[in-house]
Amino acid sequence: MNAELVESIAGLRERLARIRRSGAKVGLVPTMGALHAGHARLVERARGDCQSVTVSIFVNPLQFDREDDLRRYPRTLEGDRELCGTLGVDFVFAPPVEEMYPIPPACRVDVGRLADHLCGPYRPGHFPGVATIVLKLFEIVGPDRAYFGEKDAQQLAIIRRLVSDFNVPVQVVGVPTVREPDGLAMSSRNRQLGPSERELATVLYRALREADRQISTGTKDVHFVKAKATAEIPRDASLRLEYLDIVDPDDVQPVARIAGPVLVAGALWVGSTRLIDNLLSTPPPEKMGS
Amino acid sequence: MNAELVESIAGLRERLARIRRSGAKVGLVPTMGALHAGHARLVERARGDCQSVTVSIFVNPLQFDREDDLRRYPRTLEGDRELCGTLGVDFVFAPPVEEMYPIPPACRVDVGRLADHLCGPYRPGHFPGVATIVLKLFEIVGPDRAYFGEKDAQQLAIIRRLVSDFNVPVQVVGVPTVREPDGLAMSSRNRQLGPSERELATVLYRALREADRQISTGTKDVHFVKAKATAEIPRDASLRLEYLDIVDPDDVQPVARIAGPVLVAGALWVGSTRLIDNLLSTPPPEKMGS
Repeated sequence: MNAELVESIAGLRERLARIRRSGAKVGLVPTMGALHAGHARLVERARGDCQSVTVSIFVNPLQFDREDDLRRYPRTLEGDRELCGTLGVDFVFAPPVEEMYPIPPACRVDVGRLADHLCGPYRPGHFPGVATIVLKLFEIVGPDRAYFGEKDAQQLAIIRRLVSDFNVPVQVVGVPTVREPDGLAMSSRNRQLGPSERELATVLYRALREADRQISTGTKDVHFVKAKATAEIPRDASLRLEYLDIVDPDDVQPVARIAGPVLVAGALWVGSTRLIDNLLSTPPPEKMGS
Repeated sequence: MNAELVESIAGLRERLARIRRSGAKVGLVPTMGALHAGHARLVERARGDCQSVTVSIFVNPLQFDREDDLRRYPRTLEGDRELCGTLGVDFVFAPPVEEMYPIPPACRVDVGRLADHLCGPYRPGHFPGVATIVLKLFEIVGPDRAYFGEKDAQQLAIIRRLVSDFNVPVQVVGVPTVREPDGLAMSSRNRQLGPSERELATVLYRALREADRQISTGTKDVHFVKAKATAEIPRDASLRLEYLDIVDPDDVQPVARIAGPVLVAGALWVGSTRLIDNLLSTPPPEKMGS
């Protein structure tokens, strides 16, 4: 059975108010649709924790820095609803753009230095757009818990910080990245890859794994780790590494030397598709006196 | 009897959750303390509408653009609690700074062009700071209604817009300015005025009234109205008019010609004290064909 489709804010609030009065915990899985096994994992976690689960599907114009990316973004609402039904989702909240932005917003979330590195500089306005729509969804749904993939690590760090900075009464749950058998992180954008691009796409994860190997065996020099990792990306006309960087996992600031758990993250263009991935990497325990 | 003083977020949430379960409507009156008759009017409105009223008292460092202004801002917690008790307030929420900002916030509210005019340019960071603390208070209290004075017209416009842009489930209630018998708008900052300054301070309202007289009798030229109004401010070494402007009441953008209700607002330095005031002014109905 398909999950119930709700397109209006008032309609969703009314349904959820009724459910909440019965004492049920409400879980929210915010998505842009084109659902895959990574999303399914989020929903399964939500189902395990909460008596009622809402999946929002909204391709948020505010977070797209390129018009063509917004246009190309895959939209598969019917399939998404079917999957949500299978997974026991109560409501698929898929509002039209005019419902979420009846007028252009004057107020947005300023995410400050959290957008200064990794994807931030390459996608101006992206993270303020993400933080704004997620805050709106929190206000509309009022979830007890909200589920986000660790694949979008910078987004997750920003949402955790948004929630603590603004005292939003929601528990943010990060869910590990789901990967294809060859290591490629699940992403709605993978559908945009041609067959040869799909094969090449695995090199990003391979580069991150090399960084992790260096870090977990005690390499402390960030430049050296980055050079070793980057060397894993073959020279190929369809590949362009946008960045591969090592940052503090909470504050998303570059680290000078690896002295604790770090986030290794990269963005790789494969043809005209931009893929991102990341790993949390931990150095070996320091020897006494070192 | 004094209102109950609550200093922790968790303590306030717990008390309000209990009250809300009983079905009571919760009203919030956000203040920076140094309460006066204007605040009392806000509380009375809240008491009339809601079964439970919380007054927050927090001198928010984030919204002060000048260190000395933050230091000089009047603090009268004991008297405030007493007044709140008299007015039937349930909780005075007066958290220490570390409770509201355990770490410096990375995320803030960007209020966009709403801060481009009136006080915005003269107080960099002020309105983002106001919007951020008000959003935090909304998240902490979860009020059904929140009450703000029309005296801070730009603040009120920004909060209304914050609530609609972010879908915050709260009803914002604007309450008319309370004035002294000679017209001076009630303000915590009035306590900072010496006796001769207090006498001079009324000229701001007089200037606004002159603008209103012009507008309500059909003057459409903004420059002319501003010149007539500004002429009401006498030359005096202790007076400095920061601005006197005419803007759209919702969007806080300057109007080229007066064709509908406008906000006439000014900021006047009286000695080392900065006072603001405003009026909503409506032109006479246009004649047919004009």
